[in-house]
Amino acid sequence: MKIISTLVLASAALGFAGAASAQFAKPDDAIKYRKNALFVMQQHYARIGAMVSGKVPFNAKAAADNAAIAESMSKLPWSAFGEDTDLGDTKAKPEIWKEQAKFKQAADKMQGEMSKLAAAAKTGNLDSIKTAFNATSGTCKACHDDFRAK
Amino acid sequence: MKIISTLVLASAALGFAGAASAQFAKPDDAIKYRKNALFVMQQHYARIGAMVSGKVPFNAKAAADNAAIAESMSKLPWSAFGEDTDLGDTKAKPEIWKEQAKFKQAADKMQGEMSKLAAAAKTGNLDSIKTAFNATSGTCKACHDDFRAK
Repeated sequence: MKIISTLVLASAALGFAGAASAQFAKPDDAIKYRKNALFVMQQHYARIGAMVSGKVPFNAKAAADNAAIAESMSKLPWSAFGEDTDLGDTKAKPEIWKEQAKFKQAADKMQGEMSKLAAAAKTGNLDSIKTAFNATSGTCKACHDDFRAK
Repeated sequence: MKIISTLVLASAALGFAGAASAQFAKPDDAIKYRKNALFVMQQHYARIGAMVSGKVPFNAKAAADNAAIAESMSKLPWSAFGEDTDLGDTKAKPEIWKEQAKFKQAADKMQGEMSKLAAAAKTGNLDSIKTAFNATSGTCKACHDDFRAK
């Protein structure tokens, strides 16, 4: 029992990132995965942005579809920030691993705002979408400022 | 009315690929998008494969979670095979655009089998998962054989 407890504690201490990194065959796969997931998310997010800014005519169905995909994608990258994935072809700052609680909070905040955006997009109300989009963009920027190298 | 009909016909002639390519700012974004979406899908798919082959102990929840994500991801790449995305950093063969109906059929087949895999994974029955996984792998291989350069 003592061994099991120690394992559980060690696993908890590693946190969300360490626990999931074992899912990847090698650290480079985790780096590629999180970049790929974020790029796919960004592409769908940008399509909503184009409607919010008036660059593209508002289409309620397209907004809802893109927001639903962006919301799904927003959940994926975080398991790929394992302890061993700080070096390589990445702009991830060391602060991600030094300040894991703060990073998790930033990631959770983005996911929360992205879910609100998906809910707003379902209503088809452009003003609600604009408000939620701007709030979500704020969480992207905040996390990039703190945790992503230029 | 005649102009509208012509536009509709022209749009229909371009097919699923052409109609959607306008969503990307540039052809390279579409190429990156489809590769990224397929890589994310493959990573989740491979985790089911590791259980199917016995390399990793079977975990019903992990299988169901990964299959659900792989199913969602399986729907994304196809809008990114627009007419103007045949050149660049891609292994996509010209046959994709020469034989669009055949390519669409192959893509639809994969999505169908991936949905069956997700349904099988929800049941938690490893034998059903194995059967569905092998059927899905067959559709991956068939499409790669015909439409992806080595």
